[in-house]
Amino acid sequence: MNKNGINFKAVGKRVNRLEGKEKVCGTSKYIKDLEFEDMVYVAIATANVAHGILKSINVEEAKASKGVVDVLTYEDVPGKNEMGDVVADYPALLKPGDKIAYVGDYVAFVAAESPELARQAAKKVRIDYKELPPVFDIDEAMRDKIVIHGDTNIKTHYVVKKGEYDPEKMFENCDLVLEGEFFADYQEQAYLEPQGVIAIIDLNNTFTVYGSMQCPYYVQNGVAEVLGIPYSDVRVIQTETGGAFGGKEDVPTYFAVPAALVANKLKRPAKLCLDREEDLQLTSKRHPIKSRYKVGVTDYGRIRALRCEAIGDMGGHGTLSPIVLWRSVVHAAGAYDIKNVSVDVYGVYTNKVPCGAYRGFGSPQVFFGVESMMDQIAQELKIDRLHIRQINALEKGKTTPTGHLLNEDIGAKETITKIRERSDWEQLQKEVDDFNKNHKYVKRGLGVSHIHYGVALGAMGQRLDASGAFVQVFKDGTIGIQIGGTEMGQGAKTTMALIASEILGQDISKIRVYQPDTAFVPDSGPTVASRTTLFSGNAVKLACEQLLIKMKTVAAGHLNVPKENIVVGEKCFYDHDNPDACISFHEVAQMSDTENEGLSATGWFKTPKLHWDVEKGFGEAYVTYSFATNVVLVEVDMLTAHVQVLKVFAGHDVGRAINLDGIYGQVQGGFVQGMGYALYEVLKHDDKGHLLTTNFNTLTIPTIQEMPEFEIEIVEAPFSKGPFGAKGIGEPSLIPAPAAIANAVSHAIGKRITQIPITKDYLLKVISES
Amino acid sequence: MNKNGINFKAVGKRVNRLEGKEKVCGTSKYIKDLEFEDMVYVAIATANVAHGILKSINVEEAKASKGVVDVLTYEDVPGKNEMGDVVADYPALLKPGDKIAYVGDYVAFVAAESPELARQAAKKVRIDYKELPPVFDIDEAMRDKIVIHGDTNIKTHYVVKKGEYDPEKMFENCDLVLEGEFFADYQEQAYLEPQGVIAIIDLNNTFTVYGSMQCPYYVQNGVAEVLGIPYSDVRVIQTETGGAFGGKEDVPTYFAVPAALVANKLKRPAKLCLDREEDLQLTSKRHPIKSRYKVGVTDYGRIRALRCEAIGDMGGHGTLSPIVLWRSVVHAAGAYDIKNVSVDVYGVYTNKVPCGAYRGFGSPQVFFGVESMMDQIAQELKIDRLHIRQINALEKGKTTPTGHLLNEDIGAKETITKIRERSDWEQLQKEVDDFNKNHKYVKRGLGVSHIHYGVALGAMGQRLDASGAFVQVFKDGTIGIQIGGTEMGQGAKTTMALIASEILGQDISKIRVYQPDTAFVPDSGPTVASRTTLFSGNAVKLACEQLLIKMKTVAAGHLNVPKENIVVGEKCFYDHDNPDACISFHEVAQMSDTENEGLSATGWFKTPKLHWDVEKGFGEAYVTYSFATNVVLVEVDMLTAHVQVLKVFAGHDVGRAINLDGIYGQVQGGFVQGMGYALYEVLKHDDKGHLLTTNFNTLTIPTIQEMPEFEIEIVEAPFSKGPFGAKGIGEPSLIPAPAAIANAVSHAIGKRITQIPITKDYLLKVISES
Repeated sequence: MNKNGINFKAVGKRVNRLEGKEKVCGTSKYIKDLEFEDMVYVAIATANVAHGILKSINVEEAKASKGVVDVLTYEDVPGKNEMGDVVADYPALLKPGDKIAYVGDYVAFVAAESPELARQAAKKVRIDYKELPPVFDIDEAMRDKIVIHGDTNIKTHYVVKKGEYDPEKMFENCDLVLEGEFFADYQEQAYLEPQGVIAIIDLNNTFTVYGSMQCPYYVQNGVAEVLGIPYSDVRVIQTETGGAFGGKEDVPTYFAVPAALVANKLKRPAKLCLDREEDLQLTSKRHPIKSRYKVGVTDYGRIRALRCEAIGDMGGHGTLSPIVLWRSVVHAAGAYDIKNVSVDVYGVYTNKVPCGAYRGFGSPQVFFGVESMMDQIAQELKIDRLHIRQINALEKGKTTPTGHLLNEDIGAKETITKIRERSDWEQLQKEVDDFNKNHKYVKRGLGVSHIHYGVALGAMGQRLDASGAFVQVFKDGTIGIQIGGTEMGQGAKTTMALIASEILGQDISKIRVYQPDTAFVPDSGPTVASRTTLFSGNAVKLACEQLLIKMKTVAAGHLNVPKENIVVGEKCFYDHDNPDACISFHEVAQMSDTENEGLSATGWFKTPKLHWDVEKGFGEAYVTYSFATNVVLVEVDMLTAHVQVLKVFAGHDVGRAINLDGIYGQVQGGFVQGMGYALYEVLKHDDKGHLLTTNFNTLTIPTIQEMPEFEIEIVEAPFSKGPFGAKGIGEPSLIPAPAAIANAVSHAIGKRITQIPITKDYLLKVISES
Repeated sequence: MNKNGINFKAVGKRVNRLEGKEKVCGTSKYIKDLEFEDMVYVAIATANVAHGILKSINVEEAKASKGVVDVLTYEDVPGKNEMGDVVADYPALLKPGDKIAYVGDYVAFVAAESPELARQAAKKVRIDYKELPPVFDIDEAMRDKIVIHGDTNIKTHYVVKKGEYDPEKMFENCDLVLEGEFFADYQEQAYLEPQGVIAIIDLNNTFTVYGSMQCPYYVQNGVAEVLGIPYSDVRVIQTETGGAFGGKEDVPTYFAVPAALVANKLKRPAKLCLDREEDLQLTSKRHPIKSRYKVGVTDYGRIRALRCEAIGDMGGHGTLSPIVLWRSVVHAAGAYDIKNVSVDVYGVYTNKVPCGAYRGFGSPQVFFGVESMMDQIAQELKIDRLHIRQINALEKGKTTPTGHLLNEDIGAKETITKIRERSDWEQLQKEVDDFNKNHKYVKRGLGVSHIHYGVALGAMGQRLDASGAFVQVFKDGTIGIQIGGTEMGQGAKTTMALIASEILGQDISKIRVYQPDTAFVPDSGPTVASRTTLFSGNAVKLACEQLLIKMKTVAAGHLNVPKENIVVGEKCFYDHDNPDACISFHEVAQMSDTENEGLSATGWFKTPKLHWDVEKGFGEAYVTYSFATNVVLVEVDMLTAHVQVLKVFAGHDVGRAINLDGIYGQVQGGFVQGMGYALYEVLKHDDKGHLLTTNFNTLTIPTIQEMPEFEIEIVEAPFSKGPFGAKGIGEPSLIPAPAAIANAVSHAIGKRITQIPITKDYLLKVISES
């Protein structure tokens, strides 16, 4: 029995990852492992110009190249020549007269007998173009002197306005007003497995696309539209996916489309797997965001007013930027109870690689800003840093910065209290002070951050926020589950199995969660926004509940007791009043079969309606919020600027921990990814708009060496509409890390860090500044 | 509007076959067309002895053979070493000590790099065995002097007993009692596409079996059992299937099992496609049945009593024989209202090729007997042959020979009346008489037959008699359908599309019916017994009706009218009271998506319960019955014994004609297949139990040359539980043909034909007998 007095059978159990053995033993089938007879291999010829207008394309040399089967250009696009799930400004293949918006724009797809031959030939595609001056800087882009698409580079501008939001008046009653400017740069998702897809004309003479992806339905949409064929003629099956982190949200569509166009034209299976260099250059990154904060507080640290202006760099195409930056605007004021809020977030085009989805979705950048401000205020007012978060934190009855009244218990404050206890906060600070007194060239620092995270797609994504499941109980009592969400390493399959296990009473060894396949479940939206446990989880729960009713009816018939009396245990169904009268789950499954009760069911969960005023940026932004608090201990070598994160205390309100080991894994993995963003990962463009960072020799991500020690506290403040109360953990795991680390480094060096990644060059500069 | 006053939009429309274009253009994907990387090819080494006891197996030479990867024997079977859906007396791989029951019993599976190399090596597998005297004759087998399995060769004995069934008393009040003895021999299904399967470890690290088959769920069962793995780890996908006719009911399992065993051991895709010689030798045939009839009638031709004893030759393994021969027992007394009935049908083992399912399932053989008797009686009493059927035919309020009270209108008599009119029966007889007067060496004859057919699996197969469907409406308004039944050429896909079209109002060009896949729909039983329109059809209808309710709700919301007012037309949903207020189907589909209404639904139809006394063979044998009447005109060359069927008048009560062109196709195809059975197709064994007829050079099936002229009458006496009233047509199309042709030949030559096929040798003998 857990502390809430609920006796769970499966929920919260620590179990092995469902697909873990296959992954460890190398029998998992990734897209690279999948080969079909008579396959052609696709390579993309890109514009290689940052800004210009295409005049003509010459594919003659490429076509004559060894092993080349065909070279496709814009004339080979039977449907709509555009891609993009939110902003459709991305031509599948540029045609003469089209704007070249960044070096990676597609001009031709080469199909050849091997990937190498395709790549060689792709380099021989020539274009003629009118060169235009490129815009790489966001401030310059904001000035609109050079415009990339349409008549302004400002594609998106969202606001949040709460209380008195006039910047001139909102700070009137504050005792202290502080300002700060921050910059969070690019981050590459750096998934283990690069992008890859196969498009094939299948047994139904329709198209099946296999691939490494988060969002099969996006791929289905994209392929149907560009091929100009019915949705019922496109089926998408996710292969085992080696990491995604947002980088496989919309992006796989941009590779599925070339592969499908080739398969369609040549009537042969077409494979397109990127190597790491291609992947780094052609796929979206986390948005660089510049933010300017102004925060007013009382003398005892209560925030009264917050003003934020931020600009995000969208790169050459809009793709998902509007919804990513909408998340920035909602989270920019932090996880606090603030009366007056005014936030403006802009998204601007530049002639660089497009930016899109990345775990945290526009929020780590702004939390870096707001949480840096919180530490500065605490320092200024000499208030304990956990205390200042505690007194401003959200709770039931309060409203978020968008004015969303929280009418359920939340665990925000409990994450702070628990981390205070777990870290022995007072003692820890003393130890750090002592250490620093005794060390001249090595300094330690403690950083704090506190965040919230709106679970699922929220008010601006309501139309996509529903998910389905399809569950079968087989006649031997084993269970098969199909969901619309995907597993990409986050543990979704295990979570779904635990939910089914809880309802149907069976051990997860009897449960299969198959690779997602759009044919089984209607469009369930994307697997993003930490929504899978909540959405797919509820769908699985609903489907299992239906099956349980059917099975109870059969069991009741055989035990000759009323259906209402039947209870399911791990081994059997039994009569509640007479537990000796029982019949095994397996037998009931078999009986259901012979009695012609088909044991399949669909489950469908849709978002509760949200009320949102888009003009004012006010209302119910998300269905619920997860909360987290980090305390981080770092050590800075003041001479080399090497930073090591020693220890992390992470407190997370997840609503309900269904897959406990999965949550621990998420918290560790998310933090480390956030740490890479905070400290190590730098992406550079050259002055022609080409990315210079094209492999892991220059892109340095954390390794096992950099792993800190973790102490994790899970808080369970159940969400009434979550499966067993669960909310989400995928992104909240990462979001607090960069802010906490930056605060810890600031603390260690005694100076304010205002940009991430905290490169050694930058850190040395800050340290050496007087 | 049809004659019943029902205004159907799609039902009964003549449309092109849904998968016709792909079949005609050669883009359909049959199992032969499917190749996977790294595949091995499987060949079967058989015992090659008709009767014996296996002592040892030597695979050394085979293993050392060129291109061989591995040779599997009984030790490689991880699960149950037995196959067979009804009788499990069929070892997957014989082990020492096991009985060899026919020459095709499996001793080893060879896996090699090509099919040819696998076949070559399979010939090198040696066995040591104790030879036993074989039994090839059914009468000898009945005597049980040599017993093949267990302690008797009589595996099955079913009875039907109605009224006074004591053979000594039942004929007491009859004016005329006639006796006859008949023999119907083997028939080979002769599908265009031989058997073939591929087993592969799939993306889920579970097994997928692809293949040409009727019954994916049988394959799923068989593979799971023999591999000893959960049902949830086996998925079966039917590839486009080039004919089946019962020959792909249980049989594909016997090839899926070897392929799966190889795939399991080698972790490589394994393919096993038979060539025609292998297929003819290793797959089940129609049961040879000997029948003895005694029929008592009044002087005006009403049948009072019928006694039948029949013996079916099951061959070396039981497989499906019990249920095939149960159908014989139910249909043996014909389609008539008879007071006293006594039928005994026996199934006996012989050391020959196993017999199993074949279109008609044990009934064409007995209808040949009973309908020959009817013609003899008519001749004896000088009663018109259609008239004698008319006065004995079934109708509402009467009981079938098993005592099943018919409480709905049926079209039995109408098929007779309509054929009488359509053929201009009196005139036709006169023309034949005239022809025969004018021709000495060429004689014409008219044959009549009247049959009933119990639709679906009936009382003895109730536990399998349920079927599912899964239907999705995509956001562009196109529709995708998955059913548990299979398409094997009979037109099921088109029928399902027409049913969905009728409910959802959309043209069938917007509807896809995908290849069956066990993962989508719970065990829906086999695709046999003319049950697909009734079972899968109802399931599709139910699923579509659910979707329609969802879509009407969305449409009503947008038109702002009550849901009850909404009607669906081909183009749009509209307000019944104000048809101008309308919204397109496509728009409603899209709205449903954005409003988070997932448009998928499952449908499930299960058999109405049947009451059957298995001891007495009395009660409700089947849920409903189809009826048919054939009049056939033949021409016999009295010197060469060449028989040509000139013209066929076929009347069929199908309940409701959903897929009208499909029905015409079935009637023609079924008749021609029955004609092949009646006239041309001979299968011979040698004296060692080997089949001598191993290809189409010796097995002569009808060609386009032999096609008669058809006149088809469709009768619609709707079945209350059928989709729109539909019953079934798949088998009733064939069943009356052999009897009618034999009667026509008898009429032409003026002597009674008592065996089919009516080979030239036999016919010359009959003609020349004095």
